[in-house]
Amino acid sequence: MKNDVSVWLTLMNAALNLGGALPAELVNQSRPFLGSRGQGFWGMGQINPAAGHVASNARQIQHHIIAAEALGLDGIVFPELSLMGYPIGDIILRYPDLVAQQLNTLSELALLTKETVALVGIVEPIANVSPTAKAPYYNSVAILHQGEIKGVVRKHLLPNYNEYYDARTFQPDTEVGIQPWQHKNTGHTVPTWDGVITGPSGAYGVGLSICYDWWFDPNTHPNQTCPIQGLLEQQPNIQLLINASASPSRSGKQATRQALFQNLAQKYQRPLLYVNQCGAIDEHSYDGASCAVAADGTLISRAPSFESALWIANPFTGVGVVAPSPEEPLASTSYFLSAPDSTLAFDATHAADLERTYHSVVQGIRDYFTKTGFQRAVLGLSGGLDSSLVAALACHALGPQNVLGVRMPSPTSSDGSLTDAEDLAQRLGMPIIDCPIAEPINVFESTRQDVHAQLSSQWPLGAPSFAGDNIQAMSRASVLRVIGNDYRALPLATSDKSELYLGYATVNGDMSGALSPLGDVLKTKVRALGAWLNAKARLKGAIEPIPEAILTKPSGAELAIDPKTGRHLTAEDALMPYELADELIWRVEAHHATPQQLQTMTLTYETRYTVAPEQKQAWLDIFFTRVERAAFKWWVAPPMIIVDGSGSLAHSDYRHPVTAKIR
Amino acid sequence: MKNDVSVWLTLMNAALNLGGALPAELVNQSRPFLGSRGQGFWGMGQINPAAGHVASNARQIQHHIIAAEALGLDGIVFPELSLMGYPIGDIILRYPDLVAQQLNTLSELALLTKETVALVGIVEPIANVSPTAKAPYYNSVAILHQGEIKGVVRKHLLPNYNEYYDARTFQPDTEVGIQPWQHKNTGHTVPTWDGVITGPSGAYGVGLSICYDWWFDPNTHPNQTCPIQGLLEQQPNIQLLINASASPSRSGKQATRQALFQNLAQKYQRPLLYVNQCGAIDEHSYDGASCAVAADGTLISRAPSFESALWIANPFTGVGVVAPSPEEPLASTSYFLSAPDSTLAFDATHAADLERTYHSVVQGIRDYFTKTGFQRAVLGLSGGLDSSLVAALACHALGPQNVLGVRMPSPTSSDGSLTDAEDLAQRLGMPIIDCPIAEPINVFESTRQDVHAQLSSQWPLGAPSFAGDNIQAMSRASVLRVIGNDYRALPLATSDKSELYLGYATVNGDMSGALSPLGDVLKTKVRALGAWLNAKARLKGAIEPIPEAILTKPSGAELAIDPKTGRHLTAEDALMPYELADELIWRVEAHHATPQQLQTMTLTYETRYTVAPEQKQAWLDIFFTRVERAAFKWWVAPPMIIVDGSGSLAHSDYRHPVTAKIR
Repeated sequence: MKNDVSVWLTLMNAALNLGGALPAELVNQSRPFLGSRGQGFWGMGQINPAAGHVASNARQIQHHIIAAEALGLDGIVFPELSLMGYPIGDIILRYPDLVAQQLNTLSELALLTKETVALVGIVEPIANVSPTAKAPYYNSVAILHQGEIKGVVRKHLLPNYNEYYDARTFQPDTEVGIQPWQHKNTGHTVPTWDGVITGPSGAYGVGLSICYDWWFDPNTHPNQTCPIQGLLEQQPNIQLLINASASPSRSGKQATRQALFQNLAQKYQRPLLYVNQCGAIDEHSYDGASCAVAADGTLISRAPSFESALWIANPFTGVGVVAPSPEEPLASTSYFLSAPDSTLAFDATHAADLERTYHSVVQGIRDYFTKTGFQRAVLGLSGGLDSSLVAALACHALGPQNVLGVRMPSPTSSDGSLTDAEDLAQRLGMPIIDCPIAEPINVFESTRQDVHAQLSSQWPLGAPSFAGDNIQAMSRASVLRVIGNDYRALPLATSDKSELYLGYATVNGDMSGALSPLGDVLKTKVRALGAWLNAKARLKGAIEPIPEAILTKPSGAELAIDPKTGRHLTAEDALMPYELADELIWRVEAHHATPQQLQTMTLTYETRYTVAPEQKQAWLDIFFTRVERAAFKWWVAPPMIIVDGSGSLAHSDYRHPVTAKIR
Repeated sequence: MKNDVSVWLTLMNAALNLGGALPAELVNQSRPFLGSRGQGFWGMGQINPAAGHVASNARQIQHHIIAAEALGLDGIVFPELSLMGYPIGDIILRYPDLVAQQLNTLSELALLTKETVALVGIVEPIANVSPTAKAPYYNSVAILHQGEIKGVVRKHLLPNYNEYYDARTFQPDTEVGIQPWQHKNTGHTVPTWDGVITGPSGAYGVGLSICYDWWFDPNTHPNQTCPIQGLLEQQPNIQLLINASASPSRSGKQATRQALFQNLAQKYQRPLLYVNQCGAIDEHSYDGASCAVAADGTLISRAPSFESALWIANPFTGVGVVAPSPEEPLASTSYFLSAPDSTLAFDATHAADLERTYHSVVQGIRDYFTKTGFQRAVLGLSGGLDSSLVAALACHALGPQNVLGVRMPSPTSSDGSLTDAEDLAQRLGMPIIDCPIAEPINVFESTRQDVHAQLSSQWPLGAPSFAGDNIQAMSRASVLRVIGNDYRALPLATSDKSELYLGYATVNGDMSGALSPLGDVLKTKVRALGAWLNAKARLKGAIEPIPEAILTKPSGAELAIDPKTGRHLTAEDALMPYELADELIWRVEAHHATPQQLQTMTLTYETRYTVAPEQKQAWLDIFFTRVERAAFKWWVAPPMIIVDGSGSLAHSDYRHPVTAKIR
């Protein structure tokens, strides 16, 4: 019987996720397994919501509720705030009619339910519960059953770090368990569902929680009680713990989640059902990977990663379909104050995180375009590493015919940059055009001389500046914006995280664009990702997308020639080796290492290369001086897809006053 | 005696705030009033802190502590987080050594105290109190007295709306009153100060709170207790309530605060001492106006607005010096869900808020430059309203010799725009130069044609676009950036709030810059502010700064000619009357009016002008369509000084996902 269930789950999950209507014979074949409700079969409605787009989110939910009813599942769970979208920012405060619209839609969704319990994440106005409340909302899950809204469960712990801003729009619940649904039109004072799934085949209680409520830790949440503990004390007949979540992908997050689930299942000796959303909302890329975990902590079912899915599992049977998920590092580091640990080595190969990074960025690009209603992208192809990787990832996300590369050589560009860019575009199958920028450079340089002449009597000229370099970068960005306007294409920013961190990027220039796909990917990881893409292609017998010359040349914007050597100044000449910069960024972001600690500890870089103490001090000075001055650039950076484990420069992730001093 | 105290307070506050050392004779004259401690004389240390700049903040605090000791005051109060700076963003999480540095400095400040109690706002590591805590910090006030840190008071209510993000970095305190200072080096388990000021002249208890703890409302803070109530129950001998605050200026905030203070004083029948910071940190402009309020609710002393000050008051005497504060509207509207009220009229004259707006913006510009270490600004002078007002305000903030105006006419610019700009610069006394942009326009237009030719076989050209207009705006911004680089000057963005709200601004163009001084000032208010500046100058017998022609011409970027009329297309042709747009913005931001409500209600605009129903519907459609599409522009906007009462587009104030739908 266990084997039969397993085979059926495999077939069913495959069929459900092929798209289209369910084959009638498959539904009929389901009778032996589903037969009657109460057996423990649940659907995980792993949808891809858009913020505030209630109609579109409702369509996905509706589709899955209908399927779940047809299959006779005990219940179906949708992610946190699935009907409104998460994160929602502050828009529900400025536009409260979105919430009213959402409640109307919720009532319509309720009408679709019969015997299957549907759990749908919603923004719940506190005014519906307490008319004098001035705080606006709860973050809730509505229980839809037999055509009605039968109650709600509310979020207790509100995360407010990194990409989480729950306390801006939500109040924590302090009641335990299912609460009555007090929408004005119902007037219910007690919930009309008792949390027990009953059917001809059995009965069992379920305990619902929302996202962070499963992450309770007395040291992180002093003066608060554990939401699961409270639930089980109130309702000891709970046999299945369910969580509706919106948990973005970050390096090591999957391992951290699995460790948590194993711990919870074993601690409470109950199976778990965890439903996470997929898709990207601005900077946040969610990986789905909803799962069922047995009471002994074993992973028994997992939905695909970075894909929409309706996935069926029975957490009680111990069998299920575990879809593959990208390789990931062992665990993510804590956002809060972890002590710097000089025994940890920096891994410049990023080998364990390339597949997940790839999916995270490709999904991030795809969904940004889909959700803003654009099909086409345009970017400058310099023949360098960053622009080549952005091009490759954008081609995967949008289709190569929708990604336009523009070669914009200046008088300081090398011939190799042109041929490498052309080679890349051919390999990717994307259109490419040429717009040399010698003329705009001449025009702006002539204006610049004219300004010097006009101002000479009034303002003394300062030290030699980067204006010449910036003219090139701004001229290129202007060309891309013009093309974007004329062809309804979004320009992509090409700066990587290392450059942005050190402020080695031009405002209104290479760092500008609609989206910054690599804004949270370190330079060493960009390089490794290029090699990984090539290796993946080789395995498939396909053409390697990134020309070898691009992967091996030193990074640099080719904006200037070193007068001493006659060669292009590389970025590493101007800054420091990227392998070192990336290690410093990682030690600061993930381990909060201080300048003093970095000075004293032996860096991984120092175990690989010989570094004189004065050189190390000089590089550390450059690092912190540049980081302190770069904050104004981060402020005007476009959305960047958050990828790293513990810290980024993304607006949604990190708030740094421009006028602040950090040392 | 009362009169003598009053005269002395006037002289003393004037002398203290002239700068330099206190005259010895004034200190001697103080003996009759101060004589011995215990009489109730307090200092309000209204400093202007910078985020993370512990050394600079400490210098200001040190200066005032020394003066307070010399004068024999009972105590001196500094603002919330005065030593670290508020708001601090997330930087204390990424750079925890800032907090360690701050604690060292705090110990040094404590050594300065003798008999005067000094209350200094600090970031307090929870690890100092509870070693297993994973949450990082409390928002605390340290009590410095007799050379020691004698205890702390911690913030209970953590605001998380608008510009407040307390829950990201702080945990709420749940203990009442003064807690022991448990820094590793002390090991104290009880506070070494009992909250009682004792001296030869008397003794009285003081009750300390931090900022939002005075704003408790059971409807806004369900499941929480009133911090003041808790304090008075624990320590009934409290005779003076003190609040250390960091409360930014917004339209109507001053009136809201005064109403609160009156209410608190009367409710608890005790006098109040309220200390607020001044100065700007990025988008936040604080107005100071620290004050003492008698037990009957009367305002008896107020420090200057928008200025650093050490201000002395005795809340028990009933007399004091009330420095003037700018006129303000009666009260600010609530950020949370206030119901739309169609009986409220929109005041397009903004008469009651111009003086405060002026100070808020001028301080915001000045402190952004001071705190980033820049002296000079550069901006384009189009002869239009926005750039003229930014120029005038920047000249007031930085000195006219430090503000460079650049005329950048294009072939579509009018002659009037050139002469008006020159007239303005002469009136302001600022340097002005010319950089025509015909050549860059030609070069980019030629590139554009070349792109069309190259792409014709691959991508069909879209609908006619704004690329031509954007070329002008981007070329101008590029010129300003180049000048900024060469002369170490910061470019100022000139877009106003109405334009930004409707997305009528060019990314990498007029909306780009280091700072957006008018980003939260509606177009109708910009116009009114210009007239107000002129009226103020007339009153002083000075030259009116803004030429009349600039105040009266219709707004528009002069980017294009209307082929039908042969005249410049005005912004109002492309959008809608600004008086209407501003009313809609106000009704949405301050009163959360929905599209449907706006459609049905009689707008103030409709009481003044005849509007056909189809025209109104068309304008509302333009409004909401543009607002929904503008979010990507807000994302890359530079810091904008927050001015309005209830809502803005500033990053610090409002979070709006770019991919969101709002209707």
